Amino acid sequence: MERFYNAPDRVVDDILQVAGATGELRVATPESGLRILIRDDWDRTRQGRDQVAVLSGGGAGHEPAHAGFIGQGMLTGVISGSLFASPSVEPVLAAIREVCGAAGCLLVVKNYTGDRLNFGLAAERARAEGLNVEMVIVADDVAIAEAPQPRGIAGTLLVHKLTGYLAAQGTPLGEIQHQANALCERMGSLGMALKPAAHPGQPAASRSPELGLGIHNETGTREVAPESADDAMRLVLEPLCEALGESTDTAWVAMLNNLGSCSTQEMGVLAESLLRQLGVTNVGHLIGPAPLMTSLDMHGFSVTLVPGTSELLDALTAPTQAPAWPGVHRVRQAPTFTPNTAQGHDALLDDAPQDAETTATVWRMIEMLRGAREALDALDASSGDGDAGASMQSGADSLARALDARQLTTTELAPLFTGIGQLLARDMGGSSGVLLSILFTAAGGALDRGDGPAEALATGVGKMQEYGGARAGDRTMLDALLPAITALEEGNSLVEAAQAARTGADATASLTTANAGRSAYVPESALKGIVDPGAEAVARVFETLAQAKASSSRYR
Amino acid sequence: MERFYNAPDRVVDDILQVAGATGELRVATPESGLRILIRDDWDRTRQGRDQVAVLSGGGAGHEPAHAGFIGQGMLTGVISGSLFASPSVEPVLAAIREVCGAAGCLLVVKNYTGDRLNFGLAAERARAEGLNVEMVIVADDVAIAEAPQPRGIAGTLLVHKLTGYLAAQGTPLGEIQHQANALCERMGSLGMALKPAAHPGQPAASRSPELGLGIHNETGTREVAPESADDAMRLVLEPLCEALGESTDTAWVAMLNNLGSCSTQEMGVLAESLLRQLGVTNVGHLIGPAPLMTSLDMHGFSVTLVPGTSELLDALTAPTQAPAWPGVHRVRQAPTFTPNTAQGHDALLDDAPQDAETTATVWRMIEMLRGAREALDALDASSGDGDAGASMQSGADSLARALDARQLTTTELAPLFTGIGQLLARDMGGSSGVLLSILFTAAGGALDRGDGPAEALATGVGKMQEYGGARAGDRTMLDALLPAITALEEGNSLVEAAQAARTGADATASLTTANAGRSAYVPESALKGIVDPGAEAVARVFETLAQAKASSSRYR
Repeated sequence: MERFYNAPDRVVDDILQVAGATGELRVATPESGLRILIRDDWDRTRQGRDQVAVLSGGGAGHEPAHAGFIGQGMLTGVISGSLFASPSVEPVLAAIREVCGAAGCLLVVKNYTGDRLNFGLAAERARAEGLNVEMVIVADDVAIAEAPQPRGIAGTLLVHKLTGYLAAQGTPLGEIQHQANALCERMGSLGMALKPAAHPGQPAASRSPELGLGIHNETGTREVAPESADDAMRLVLEPLCEALGESTDTAWVAMLNNLGSCSTQEMGVLAESLLRQLGVTNVGHLIGPAPLMTSLDMHGFSVTLVPGTSELLDALTAPTQAPAWPGVHRVRQAPTFTPNTAQGHDALLDDAPQDAETTATVWRMIEMLRGAREALDALDASSGDGDAGASMQSGADSLARALDARQLTTTELAPLFTGIGQLLARDMGGSSGVLLSILFTAAGGALDRGDGPAEALATGVGKMQEYGGARAGDRTMLDALLPAITALEEGNSLVEAAQAARTGADATASLTTANAGRSAYVPESALKGIVDPGAEAVARVFETLAQAKASSSRYR
Repeated sequence: MERFYNAPDRVVDDILQVAGATGELRVATPESGLRILIRDDWDRTRQGRDQVAVLSGGGAGHEPAHAGFIGQGMLTGVISGSLFASPSVEPVLAAIREVCGAAGCLLVVKNYTGDRLNFGLAAERARAEGLNVEMVIVADDVAIAEAPQPRGIAGTLLVHKLTGYLAAQGTPLGEIQHQANALCERMGSLGMALKPAAHPGQPAASRSPELGLGIHNETGTREVAPESADDAMRLVLEPLCEALGESTDTAWVAMLNNLGSCSTQEMGVLAESLLRQLGVTNVGHLIGPAPLMTSLDMHGFSVTLVPGTSELLDALTAPTQAPAWPGVHRVRQAPTFTPNTAQGHDALLDDAPQDAETTATVWRMIEMLRGAREALDALDASSGDGDAGASMQSGADSLARALDARQLTTTELAPLFTGIGQLLARDMGGSSGVLLSILFTAAGGALDRGDGPAEALATGVGKMQEYGGARAGDRTMLDALLPAITALEEGNSLVEAAQAARTGADATASLTTANAGRSAYVPESALKGIVDPGAEAVARVFETLAQAKASSSRYR
């Protein structure tokens, strides 16, 4: 299966079913076989007495056009044909009868022969019944310069918005028609695609990228070979701007339409290119990028440009309840701010107070970690990417530099821990660097709030778990950290804590499943008998601490 | 070129550039190298005193998430990483500092290790600075039933909406966090795709359709082979509903997310399938279908379900200025209306008054057209699809049946013309049927208003041109009609009008370009020397009329 469809001949009715179920609409009975959707709150004898009803429609396959644009401030209703085929006269006439009150009814029709004829005959017959009906034919495509009948494409949506706005204001039918025709004179659209659309149930045709596409998968006016999004946008903007003539003092309103299957990322890149090529100051407002008037899954886009007069902007920016109207974005150079990247509460000082014994202990730790590099890398080679030792060493080196520069306070544990957290975040890298930084930063904060060392470490390791998501038994450094800290919390000595860490680390050799951390993606057999390098490092840290404590006690 | 990109490494900044230029945002200075976007009107000392700031973000490639969801009532700001890669600690911390006032700051984080760690450490460091920061981790993916750490996917947007709503209400930080966690407990999401995403500048991987996809192009949890949109939707809904447990009395809120490059038509078909499979009454509200949390151009979708409690609906349906929030659609069976397809102003009567002479003239016309079928088909075979004669005959047959049934008034021209217009619209088919119906309907209306026959025909042919779009010289029936009617308008006899029609018809044989009608797509050489069949039919009609007039005059 290439595309998400059910039976090809059900596509249009499936889509309209959703429009009916999720919009505030009433729909023609299924038995009628007519595809008519009308604003549910519209009553031709009530609103229709003072407000012109605006109908549009045409072939399907252009969703969200046209049903998505029904709503207060935009279309009163829509008549849908089959895929790429005009509805016949009967449903158009029935829709006119449903909506047209004393204020009359405007038909907004895209310039295709089938639509013109069927909507046209319906209009004539409605007039014969005494209804006040007028038609606007939209022909915004500039693809064929000398075309006697340019096609109606995405620009039609601007006519929907303008006429729906004017109708809601109570503007008379003739004036709405006049203003709509004036808009049609001023706007132009042009489309291009890398790949044509595929009809449901049929494979996509293989065609070159094309410029000047309609919305019925017609062949474009010429083959092109854009090399980038910029190139594609230039190919569209140059003839479009030429067709519209010299830009006046009035900034453009630009509409960027996804013709079908472009990703949001591609449309974002195209939008950036559009604003840059026309110049941010020359594009006052942008509509989209969004799929607005599509051609099934065509991989392409169209641009519509029109001078943004204040009258037009009033109409385009007015609120509407039409669900698919994407709104109009004011374009400007975004204001900037300088992000505050100061270390803020900086635990690193210029001439930090030193406690000789603690400083010596930290040095001892640094030397131990530097010396353990090869052993830890070797353990990691079996279960990870072999850089656990190198990573620990870069953390140790960072501490060494800070000690050399007398930046790290060693007279109190709180600023020491906070400083270590700061250094590890900056210099150690990798997930383990962030995790250890979280441990020391949170523990430092807890010490600051008056907690004891064991309690503070427990807070830190809790945060490690919260953010890291690993649990005991997951083959991570937690398997040594948790038992050691628990031992301290229970009032045991550093020696006993170190023993608990060692026991926990060694036990990781028999854990053959890993749910978190570096070993999570390694087969069980590779883990058997191998101690987790993170847990091993933690065990060695506690052993070093215990030895330092013992030797300092001996000296005393 | 397969996709609309410029340099692959520019994609994220291009997209954010547009978000900044079209949103009401302020952005971190380009020199900072940090990708931070903040609501432009947000002042931590003003709104931030009473309202919690809500930050989110993560890797890019999920547009419109996350920048599209910044705005009053949703996110206060966003921190973006590179494609599919978490931002580092520094920009997250800078963003917190920018937005966090006395009311505090909530971080909404998707459950990926990188995001948890970087946002987590930033939170710890912000707390160390005295800022009141909490985090909610979203893990809505139900793809891996026993996963200790389910991924955060599209459901994250519901958390954005809920927390943004509560924040705007002035709800305290702890309560917002509590309610967000409760929402996370209740909701679930599941994705599937026909094709994986392609990184900018790289070809798409070739993989089977998969179920249980994350949003970073990871391989899905299993390969599937859906045969239809219904099948694909069932594959998603069954495990999703199972994971969420027995549906309560509360109807679901369903969110249908386009993972990248599905067309609007495919998403419409999928939405219909979703509503039908769950049951319209079991889905109270639908969000989307729309691209909300995408995975570049992945050709797939995800469904998110959550029980729609009234508190949640208050939050989800509240207005927001976030540009990409698609709104929440109430789901219901659309109310229906019976379209009025009556003939309305019916010109066909049960026992229509007959004028013997006029009735005879119409019969003469019918016989002529029946007899001309082969000749007209032959002319059409060179320039069109060879059915011009058959089409005229079906119109003639329709008139014959109406005359036999005494439905057609022949005592007055106005109801006769209107009746013919009605018959041709119903029975003749094709563009020419609609065009001739327009001619007779409009002419009938003009006669009704008191115009003379020539003037009325001129009005009718004017409407034909207006709706049909053809002009004189375009090789259509107009080339005979226009000179004949002009002759009548100038006071000439029917014989002279018939001569003018004949001259005009014959002249079409030398017109080798056609701008409208059936010959518009035929090469010049095929048209040379061939009279247009429509013009030929018109000439024969006027000749028959002139003969009838002459013979009736003779009888008198």
